[in-house]
Amino acid sequence: MYIGVDIGGTNLAAGIVDEHGRITARDSLPTLRGRSSGEIITDIARLCRSLVDKAGLSMSDIKKIGAGCPGTIDTQTGTAVYVNNLKMEGVPLAAELERLLQKEVHLENDANAAAYGEYCIYGDGVKSFIMITLGTGVGSGIILDGKIYRGFNGAGGELGHMTLVSGGRRCSCGKDGCWEAYASVTALIAQTEEAIKENPQSLTARLAADRGKISGRTAFEAAKAGDRVGSDIVSRYAKYVADGIVSAVNIFQPEKIVIGGGISREGDYLLKPVAEIVKANDYNKYRPHTQLETAKLFNDAGIIGAALAAR
Amino acid sequence: MYIGVDIGGTNLAAGIVDEHGRITARDSLPTLRGRSSGEIITDIARLCRSLVDKAGLSMSDIKKIGAGCPGTIDTQTGTAVYVNNLKMEGVPLAAELERLLQKEVHLENDANAAAYGEYCIYGDGVKSFIMITLGTGVGSGIILDGKIYRGFNGAGGELGHMTLVSGGRRCSCGKDGCWEAYASVTALIAQTEEAIKENPQSLTARLAADRGKISGRTAFEAAKAGDRVGSDIVSRYAKYVADGIVSAVNIFQPEKIVIGGGISREGDYLLKPVAEIVKANDYNKYRPHTQLETAKLFNDAGIIGAALAAR
Repeated sequence: MYIGVDIGGTNLAAGIVDEHGRITARDSLPTLRGRSSGEIITDIARLCRSLVDKAGLSMSDIKKIGAGCPGTIDTQTGTAVYVNNLKMEGVPLAAELERLLQKEVHLENDANAAAYGEYCIYGDGVKSFIMITLGTGVGSGIILDGKIYRGFNGAGGELGHMTLVSGGRRCSCGKDGCWEAYASVTALIAQTEEAIKENPQSLTARLAADRGKISGRTAFEAAKAGDRVGSDIVSRYAKYVADGIVSAVNIFQPEKIVIGGGISREGDYLLKPVAEIVKANDYNKYRPHTQLETAKLFNDAGIIGAALAAR
Repeated sequence: MYIGVDIGGTNLAAGIVDEHGRITARDSLPTLRGRSSGEIITDIARLCRSLVDKAGLSMSDIKKIGAGCPGTIDTQTGTAVYVNNLKMEGVPLAAELERLLQKEVHLENDANAAAYGEYCIYGDGVKSFIMITLGTGVGSGIILDGKIYRGFNGAGGELGHMTLVSGGRRCSCGKDGCWEAYASVTALIAQTEEAIKENPQSLTARLAADRGKISGRTAFEAAKAGDRVGSDIVSRYAKYVADGIVSAVNIFQPEKIVIGGGISREGDYLLKPVAEIVKANDYNKYRPHTQLETAKLFNDAGIIGAALAAR
C-alpha cells in the first residue's frame, strides 16, 4: 500500500492507495494557508498517521508516500522550489516528511501527479498523454513514453502559460496573453461577469443574482435553459479552451488529451464544442488523430497520481 | 560516408557527409516543382550518383542515404504522406530511391532533419533542444532525450501552428492566429508592406523602392540606419517571435533553443530583443534557464541532419 497526498491551497487530502491505484481510505485537513511551511508539514504527517489508523493499518504496511504540490518542484531533491499560494520557497518538503514519518517520500508537481494518475488508470496504455486541468489556473501534465515530462530543469509542462493572445490580458504569472488568462475557470467567471454587466436582464444575470454569486457553472446553466447570453459565453470560452488544445495537438500529436477540473463535469456541453474546433484546426489532416476526452478521476487524480508516481 | 539530401521547393541539394557531420562535397539541381513525383525522384537519384562521382567515390563507399522533405512524413515506412508545395500524397519516396540507388534510404521531415543536424553539430551534448526556422513558414524540430520528437502519428512538432493570437490572422494552414502567420518571414514582409503604405516617406519605403522589392531584410536595414518605422517593424516582429518562443520555453523548458532560417543572419539585431522578452516572460523564475542562440549551419543543416538521422 501507498499513501498519496494532494497538497492544495484549501485542503490537504490524503488516501491509502493500492498497487492498482484504488483508494481504500481517505482523509483530509484544512491547509490554512497563512501558516508556516513547518506547521503545514507537521499537519501532513499527522494526516498520514491518522489515515493509516483509520484504515486499520500500521505504517509498516506502507511502502512509500507520494505527495503532489503546486508550484515549481525539484523532484530529484524533493524540494518545493517555489509555491506561490503557500508562500514556500526552497522548502525540503520530502526530507522533512521523511524525518517525521520514517518513510520514503516522493514529491511531484500537483498537475503532473494528477495527469499521471489519470494516465495510469484511464490511459488505455497509450504512450503519449496530456491532461489539462481547468481550475483557478490552467494546469497541465504531459506524459511522454509513459513518463512525466518535466524539462531539463524540472519546471516544464506549463501549457497554461503558452501565449494564446499576443499582447492580450495580463496573466497572474505577469506575462500577457497566457492561455490561463482566457481558459481558466477564473477567466470564465470574469467573462461571465462582463456579460452580465452588459446584459443585466438575461437569465445568466438572474441566475447569478439568485445564487448570490457567479461561478464557472452560471453560464452553462443559463445556456442549458436556452439563454442566448449564456450560450454566447460558453461558445467563446470553448473557443479559448480549444485554441490552446489545438496548440497542444499540433505540437505534441499525443495519443490522448483529457480535460479535467470541476468544469469538466459539464461533460459534452463543454467537450463537444471544444472537440469540433480542435478537429477543424488540427494541422494533421492525413494521419490518425488525438483522442479528446474529459477526465474521469476528478479530485482523486492528485492522490492516486502522487501515490503511483512514488510507486 | 553518407549522402544527405535536402528536398526543397526550389532546389534539390545533396552532400557527401562524413561520420562527424562534415560535408566533403555538394551538388544541387532545380526542383522544378510542377513535375510529377516520379520525375523528381529520378532527379534525386541522378543527383546522388553525380555527387558520388564528383567526390571521387563509388556508391559502395556510401553507407546510407538520408533525405529531408517538407510536409507530413511517415519515417517508419519512408512515405511522403502529404507535401503541400510538391503535390506529393502517399509517395513511397524512400522505397523508390532505394530501388534506383540500391542503398538504404531514411526519410525525415525537413525541419526535423535541420534541427537534428544543428543539434548534432552545435548541441553541446544537451538532451533537449528545439530549432525554430523562420522562413516562408515557421518550421520547428524538437529533440528530446537526443531523439527527434514526432508524436504518436509522426505529425507532431509543429510549433509554427500553435495559436499565437486567438481569432487572429488566417494562416496558410487554414487555422486562425498561428504563430507562423505572425513570425514567418512571409509575415514580416507583409508587416513591412503595411508599414510602408502608412509611411511612404520613410527610409524603409525608400529602401524597398531602391531595391525594387520588399524582403525580410528591408526593415532591419532601415532600422540599422536609424529609421523609426524600420525599428518599429523590427520590434513588433521580435515580440511575435519571442511570444512563440516563450510558449516553447514554458512548455518544454529545453536546455537550448536555436533560431534558424535566413533572417537569423541578422544576429543580435533579432536575437537581443527576442531574448529580452523571453527572459522577462519565462514562467520559470527559480531554476536554470533555456539558452537561446541563433543557428549556425544555415543551409547546410538540412543536408547534414538528414545524413546524420540516417546514420
